[in-house]
Amino acid sequence: MKAVPGVNFSTTPLSVNGREYRPPAAPLVAICIDGCEDDYLVTSISEGCMPTVEAMSKNGYRGMARGALPSFTNVNNAAIATGAPPSVTGISGNFFLDPESDEEVMMNSADYLRAETIFSAAARAGRKVAVVTAKEKLRDILSKDLQGIAFSAERASEARLETHGIDDVEALVGQPTPEIYSAEASLFVLRAGVALLENQMADFLYLSLTDYMQHKFAPDESESLDFHRALDVELARLIATGAVVAATADHGMNAKNLPDGSPNVIYLETMLTAQFGPGIKVICPITDPYVAHHGALGSLVMVHLPDEMNRTAIADWILELPGVSEVHDRETAAEQLELPADRIGDLAVLSDRHVVLGRTPADHDLQLLAGGLRSHGGRYEEMVPLLFSHPLNEQYLARAGDDPRNFDIFEFACNGVVL
Amino acid sequence: MKAVPGVNFSTTPLSVNGREYRPPAAPLVAICIDGCEDDYLVTSISEGCMPTVEAMSKNGYRGMARGALPSFTNVNNAAIATGAPPSVTGISGNFFLDPESDEEVMMNSADYLRAETIFSAAARAGRKVAVVTAKEKLRDILSKDLQGIAFSAERASEARLETHGIDDVEALVGQPTPEIYSAEASLFVLRAGVALLENQMADFLYLSLTDYMQHKFAPDESESLDFHRALDVELARLIATGAVVAATADHGMNAKNLPDGSPNVIYLETMLTAQFGPGIKVICPITDPYVAHHGALGSLVMVHLPDEMNRTAIADWILELPGVSEVHDRETAAEQLELPADRIGDLAVLSDRHVVLGRTPADHDLQLLAGGLRSHGGRYEEMVPLLFSHPLNEQYLARAGDDPRNFDIFEFACNGVVL
Repeated sequence: MKAVPGVNFSTTPLSVNGREYRPPAAPLVAICIDGCEDDYLVTSISEGCMPTVEAMSKNGYRGMARGALPSFTNVNNAAIATGAPPSVTGISGNFFLDPESDEEVMMNSADYLRAETIFSAAARAGRKVAVVTAKEKLRDILSKDLQGIAFSAERASEARLETHGIDDVEALVGQPTPEIYSAEASLFVLRAGVALLENQMADFLYLSLTDYMQHKFAPDESESLDFHRALDVELARLIATGAVVAATADHGMNAKNLPDGSPNVIYLETMLTAQFGPGIKVICPITDPYVAHHGALGSLVMVHLPDEMNRTAIADWILELPGVSEVHDRETAAEQLELPADRIGDLAVLSDRHVVLGRTPADHDLQLLAGGLRSHGGRYEEMVPLLFSHPLNEQYLARAGDDPRNFDIFEFACNGVVL
Repeated sequence: MKAVPGVNFSTTPLSVNGREYRPPAAPLVAICIDGCEDDYLVTSISEGCMPTVEAMSKNGYRGMARGALPSFTNVNNAAIATGAPPSVTGISGNFFLDPESDEEVMMNSADYLRAETIFSAAARAGRKVAVVTAKEKLRDILSKDLQGIAFSAERASEARLETHGIDDVEALVGQPTPEIYSAEASLFVLRAGVALLENQMADFLYLSLTDYMQHKFAPDESESLDFHRALDVELARLIATGAVVAATADHGMNAKNLPDGSPNVIYLETMLTAQFGPGIKVICPITDPYVAHHGALGSLVMVHLPDEMNRTAIADWILELPGVSEVHDRETAAEQLELPADRIGDLAVLSDRHVVLGRTPADHDLQLLAGGLRSHGGRYEEMVPLLFSHPLNEQYLARAGDDPRNFDIFEFACNGVVL
């Protein structure tokens, strides 16, 4: 542990959503490496691009954790920020059909978050909290009730002391606001974290990256290796500040193409309408403003049925479609997938490792997906890496060997590491 | 490529179960590392125990492949041996309810295998084939119609030229027949492979290990690290013979315990009988003679219902049990899980990552599971490592990035590596 002369860190315990957190007497950084399928680490390590992750594996801990379903960004970031599953956070996707208005809306406002964040509690307990996201869409949810710093790389230039808890982010990080469709969008977040730590502006940080690179490149492509090499450099700099560094992912990432390279899509609303008649709505909760990532095609969709339709018969019919792996009705999805019953469909449908679910051909612009579709949302993108810079104590090493969740990361980083 | 002076290898193409195989002009060894959850490799590599696997990752290929469901040993060994899913092989478990006799029987005889093996075809095409298994239970299935060598470590001392294609196995390997509940049972198989190659007794090999160590030890336990270090030494020796070395697993492995360390079991037959009355049979297809491994507790069971019971209502009821993840009726399981419809139950039930399914408390001896239960059988043990000593060509590298299967391993090793 590198000593930080003259700096004291509040170790006042936090109680958030039924869990106890004992913040360490050191800076703490948790990172969500958006879309980090473990293969990215395996391949990058074997190519010699991630010596810091290799060292973390040896000196700290590297294993796997189970994320929340659906394996989407907002769902899992909300879970990580609160230490609670979607049934508690209320965030069941990026996008949902609001039962009150019957309108399809983005779930990117803090108004939708039903649980307190660990960040607001840590700030109240005296930690200097900073939340830095790549995408602006996440900033509002994650900074709910936060007395601290919160900004996105996408809108770094717009951060103001009154609204974001910080001014002049570009000067602090030493680079201009990056393009959101770039590797730099993620690297900017990590560099901001380093700068905040080095300048003692924060000691309890959450850094949430973007999966643009993972959607676009497979683990063995040179662009991916370059990105992970750069990411590894920033991990080393974070660790060099003396911080406890923890990392996980919101979801994995798999190729979802036919042998000819075109996206392997089941247009479920089209098929259901042809079979059962009009009135059925398929909602793709992966939908977000960043369509170049995935064309709103993921491996879990919600199906809303008119009241008069036979839910069981339709569920059975869907489950027999080649490429579909699971169909759950609302109550079962709420119970088994830990989802908020009022923010999901009458049916939740999941697809195979190499298959995505869509609405109708007109709803998805496949032209944006030149180079093949890589996406997520289902059971095959649920398992993600779990990394710590420091070794785990006996109790948490045992828990890591059971069925740890990605949204346990702050509990592990607070209560489970040996400084 | 190390030249083997004076030795020619038949490169006559094989056609087996609708696939073409072009055997390399080199010895070929495929290994099934029974129960090799990727975490075993990640942890062992980070602890410096697997330099050969590290080198294979760098110089050859390391990624992930999807196995066959249920994620059990016989199911996946039969699939690997034939290059075909269980719907083609007919092997749907270690154990099933025979609809003709209504008796519960082991599926460990070649009579149950409905497809030709790659081994018998390779032998007919002029390759010197050897199949070495740790467990005797697999030898009979895998050596169906084989003109070549086939023996198990468990019964190495019993191998005879007339029946096994080889005599004096203990002398060849240089060690006595190992205990089946030991690390040596797997290491003996690998050493036999080395000896067969070095003595030019075989040039087309399948080596199938046992998962005793993986059932018993987590990746970070010293016994596991020692085992993987020893395994890595044998991989290096296999590669040193000049062979193309490929490895995958039949299934992964997860801890399946409650927080107090006791097995996390749903006794499904007990619960169904209490709810719906007598006559329901739950079959645990993980059941085999090696009960100390898992107490016949895995994450997939088959449910057989009396004709008069309402299958849909019972399926819905099961799916709502906490810890159950999927329920499929016979037709859907046959279609979506690629299973033989006549060798499964009316319902196939899968459980969560940390949960196993059992029959009744009396059917499972938990005393055998001192130290906690680690098991497999479900969706969370379906993804397994895929390793090659040589780089993949462009076509197969692309396929590896899609949705490769563990039972593609011989096709990759024959058609996909660059010598």
